[in-house]
Amino acid sequence: MKYRLLSRLNLPGDLKKLNPKQEQELCAEIRDKIITTVSKNGGHLSSNLGAVELTVAIHRVFDSPADKIIFDVGHQSYTHKLLTGRYSTFHTLRKKGGLSGFTRPSESEHDPCVSGHSSNSISLALGIAEAMKLSGDDHHAIAVIGDGAMTGGHAFEGLNNAGHSGTNIIVILNYNEMSISKNIGGVAAYLSELRTQTSYRRIKSGAKKVITSIPLVGGGLSNILSASKDSIKERLIHSTMFEDFGFEFIGPVDGHNLEKLEAALKSAKELGGPVLVQVNTVKGKGYEAAELEPGEYHGVVRFDVETGEKPSVPSTYTDVFGAELARLAHLDERIVGITAAMKYGVGLNHFNDGLKDRLFDVGIAEEHAVSFAAGLATMGKLPVFSVYSSFLQRSYDELIHDVAIPGLHVVLAICNCGIVGEDGETHQGLFDIPFLSTIPGTTAYSPSCYAEMKLCLNKALYEDTGLVCIRMPKGGESEIFTPTVTFDHTDRGSDDLIVSYGRESCEAESAAKQLNISHLRLTRLLPLQPEALEIIRSHRKAYIFEETSSLGSLGEKLASECPNIVRTAIDGFVPAMSICEALDLYGLSAERIVEKIGGENAAP
Amino acid sequence: MKYRLLSRLNLPGDLKKLNPKQEQELCAEIRDKIITTVSKNGGHLSSNLGAVELTVAIHRVFDSPADKIIFDVGHQSYTHKLLTGRYSTFHTLRKKGGLSGFTRPSESEHDPCVSGHSSNSISLALGIAEAMKLSGDDHHAIAVIGDGAMTGGHAFEGLNNAGHSGTNIIVILNYNEMSISKNIGGVAAYLSELRTQTSYRRIKSGAKKVITSIPLVGGGLSNILSASKDSIKERLIHSTMFEDFGFEFIGPVDGHNLEKLEAALKSAKELGGPVLVQVNTVKGKGYEAAELEPGEYHGVVRFDVETGEKPSVPSTYTDVFGAELARLAHLDERIVGITAAMKYGVGLNHFNDGLKDRLFDVGIAEEHAVSFAAGLATMGKLPVFSVYSSFLQRSYDELIHDVAIPGLHVVLAICNCGIVGEDGETHQGLFDIPFLSTIPGTTAYSPSCYAEMKLCLNKALYEDTGLVCIRMPKGGESEIFTPTVTFDHTDRGSDDLIVSYGRESCEAESAAKQLNISHLRLTRLLPLQPEALEIIRSHRKAYIFEETSSLGSLGEKLASECPNIVRTAIDGFVPAMSICEALDLYGLSAERIVEKIGGENAAP
Repeated sequence: MKYRLLSRLNLPGDLKKLNPKQEQELCAEIRDKIITTVSKNGGHLSSNLGAVELTVAIHRVFDSPADKIIFDVGHQSYTHKLLTGRYSTFHTLRKKGGLSGFTRPSESEHDPCVSGHSSNSISLALGIAEAMKLSGDDHHAIAVIGDGAMTGGHAFEGLNNAGHSGTNIIVILNYNEMSISKNIGGVAAYLSELRTQTSYRRIKSGAKKVITSIPLVGGGLSNILSASKDSIKERLIHSTMFEDFGFEFIGPVDGHNLEKLEAALKSAKELGGPVLVQVNTVKGKGYEAAELEPGEYHGVVRFDVETGEKPSVPSTYTDVFGAELARLAHLDERIVGITAAMKYGVGLNHFNDGLKDRLFDVGIAEEHAVSFAAGLATMGKLPVFSVYSSFLQRSYDELIHDVAIPGLHVVLAICNCGIVGEDGETHQGLFDIPFLSTIPGTTAYSPSCYAEMKLCLNKALYEDTGLVCIRMPKGGESEIFTPTVTFDHTDRGSDDLIVSYGRESCEAESAAKQLNISHLRLTRLLPLQPEALEIIRSHRKAYIFEETSSLGSLGEKLASECPNIVRTAIDGFVPAMSICEALDLYGLSAERIVEKIGGENAAP
Repeated sequence: MKYRLLSRLNLPGDLKKLNPKQEQELCAEIRDKIITTVSKNGGHLSSNLGAVELTVAIHRVFDSPADKIIFDVGHQSYTHKLLTGRYSTFHTLRKKGGLSGFTRPSESEHDPCVSGHSSNSISLALGIAEAMKLSGDDHHAIAVIGDGAMTGGHAFEGLNNAGHSGTNIIVILNYNEMSISKNIGGVAAYLSELRTQTSYRRIKSGAKKVITSIPLVGGGLSNILSASKDSIKERLIHSTMFEDFGFEFIGPVDGHNLEKLEAALKSAKELGGPVLVQVNTVKGKGYEAAELEPGEYHGVVRFDVETGEKPSVPSTYTDVFGAELARLAHLDERIVGITAAMKYGVGLNHFNDGLKDRLFDVGIAEEHAVSFAAGLATMGKLPVFSVYSSFLQRSYDELIHDVAIPGLHVVLAICNCGIVGEDGETHQGLFDIPFLSTIPGTTAYSPSCYAEMKLCLNKALYEDTGLVCIRMPKGGESEIFTPTVTFDHTDRGSDDLIVSYGRESCEAESAAKQLNISHLRLTRLLPLQPEALEIIRSHRKAYIFEETSSLGSLGEKLASECPNIVRTAIDGFVPAMSICEALDLYGLSAERIVEKIGGENAAP
């Protein structure tokens, strides 16, 4: 049997009975299972392969679910899933009705929290740890966080609050020198320096002994010691940033050496109080193609296990946008591109030759990114922050405070708007219209094809003022429309009207043709267009279909102006499933649109 | 003349011509002017008195507006205002049509950015500095940030991005050991340690020399040096957290010694690249009552300059809420209170005897606060995060991701909802309904008197599930209604109806009585109540009045369900003015309501 141990053990309990050789075998089985599954279902590969031994060690040292393990982002939790009763359903990973690609409390008692967004694990773990302390429960809360996520301010807030709390919280820094793009910034450089220390705790103990026993001999050193003895001593004995925050520090530990990992985690468990364990891992460990190009295998669709070959990717909105912005940036030196650690994901990899000094990768820091853009705008630059819809939620206050109140001209290129498919609840772009539409002075476009997106981008840069947003769906264009920056009314002389925007316009137009109903395709969503409202009001019923949360949807806004609006939008959160499946489930596919309108207008 | 220098100098240019004695005189004049003005107009006192010499020194060393000075929060910018042409209008501080209590680009070319919220100054300054670099402008961007604001993750994101950028950005850490409440957490402890170093740069230079010249003599130290020479050396030479981030570090400097301040700032200017200057200041410096109790004089309404006496404060929602929550917490040990550095401002000072272990002041960290609450909730605690409406904007993503998706039971006590008065644009609580109403599963109450607030709090804790919000206005109750957790319909048999919630219900009821019109007072706003919608629909017109942004207002939602809704809400941002003035200006006072409805229904 291929998965001899994995399929038979009653996990995680039986894990503790394995001998070292069996542990190695188990890790090999886990790697094989992950590679095989991800090659079919897509998902996160590099991060999961890097965390196999670490996760095995955690489950050997701690007792889940009494001890709570919180994986930051959760994109490295596949081993955890395999070790906590989800081996037999692992083939359903990221499928409709299957296992999530992230942790979900609804899926297992071993998942204490929802994960998907970055940098919140320390805060969640601290909340759990304080609750345990208040209840006299002496179990542990363990946050597993990568160095990429550590660049997010949210993580820093958690560290700051945990330090000196005296509470049992263990933060495991999974150091692999990569977030999705290559890590940059002060913390990355600092952590990189820490990584090179081979045995920090040994040196620390050594230093302590030496300093304590050092005689105050003449010369410079003794002068310094007498001038500021405690401070210098502190610097030798108490010398990582994490200790400055009030954490005990252990590490760095070889993240692929089970024995060392378990020893370090046991120390952390015994120490009590806030402890940070630095574990050095190799992203993609055990799969050569992924080890060599961990960024390429961060998140994958499918691939051939033998050759590493991936299906060729058709063009995407993001890529076409990035190329167009780069083209414009070559012509206009005011244009500046900003990404929060997702250069490739948001198309800004096109800022290369001659444009590198105008590309700012600010780390996983969406709050900072917006305020930084505002600073650039005050100086007459044209900042374009390209970001996923669901991650832009982090910037709500900064959009109001630093951009909208002063009325600065900042362009947001919002990627992955609407349904995103297999990443599920935490990554759906359902809230951008709801929250952006609450910000006074916001202009928002939702183009339905590449040419229109380019037209909107030009308008956003050179004609509009204030906060201007261009929404783009995941994936590429599927139909070509006559580009406009306002709206496109296909009048078929019907009593009723279909209203749509963005990618959904393809489904809507297909349905409109079948039903021979007029179609109003909105490109500009905000501010509302009086002429478009007139067209809506001139029909008996106007059916709007949108890949947006129903609470705060465009349909809600239109309905407040036009009583004949009939809304179809998305209620609640959308779990993992393909985009097509989701569109169908939520009544947004052409077929379902035809059903709905045809059904309502059918003779009784 | 009392303000001999301040009133005559052509500032900031002439500032550079002053001799040391005149500088001292000027500082005394500034202090007097600030104390006198704040004693009449209210405002921030302690922070401004602490930053007088620092601001004078900045303006002597740098050339505003070519050099850009960004004050974090902006509550310490009064000296800056007095030095940049706003002496003659300073008496209008925080008045309608007068000077803002924070920086505003609309007010002066010397204010590069809007300020009000915390921890964004480094990001803004970095944006400006990068823009300067791209444009070949060698002026400086200077962020002035307190140690309180430094606990916000946003500041960390800025530091992280600025470090190793090689860009000319100067961060001045105004260290006074206080945010609004006493600072806590790892960073506060760390900075406190730094404060005690008397002359860091001297020691640093000394250490460099010593380490470089040290011979590898026998014994422990040489062993360590040979084992990890660079690392130990780094720790002596490169030894503040800020240097770990890639900043040059200067300080600590006595923040009330003009000569030393100017010398330090000149060094920073000459150094180039990212530099952090730590300045130790005394909050309230020069006004004894404020020095002794800086927290008491952080933000004041009015006071008597001679005696320090303040007008007695009537009861407030926040205070009554805090007392009630503490009462409940004594009865139920699951209740936990959370504040983001505003224990007094949000009523959680009532968590004292016997409750201190269930009060968590997490720093200026609204993102963390929500995720931390979610962690507590997973363990069966009843977390209550008490926070100002405008600061909760920082938590939007965490409310969706960590609370709403898993459906955790977290209670938000939202203070300063609606119009807040003299703090102006950045502090108005206009967006909580717009953004909270986009989050699936949210329950929101907006009580109109204390008794009702207590009823809602009990319901939120013991009957509701998921995310539950209780909105409270600034100030106290002004009328008593029959408490309900749903709605209160005063049927006067009229064709039309007035709809209101929260504090606005007092104005609305007064108008309804005058007009003899029925009044529907909503206590629960979210989810919408079908019975309330029925009542609305049963009238000819239903006029809603609300202290909320019109974009995403409750009225917008009601209008999408009831075509007879006539909305009055707030368009755009509301600058400083008294609450009464704002209610009147935006058509929300009883008088204006009567005018509107009376006018519309007057015979033609």
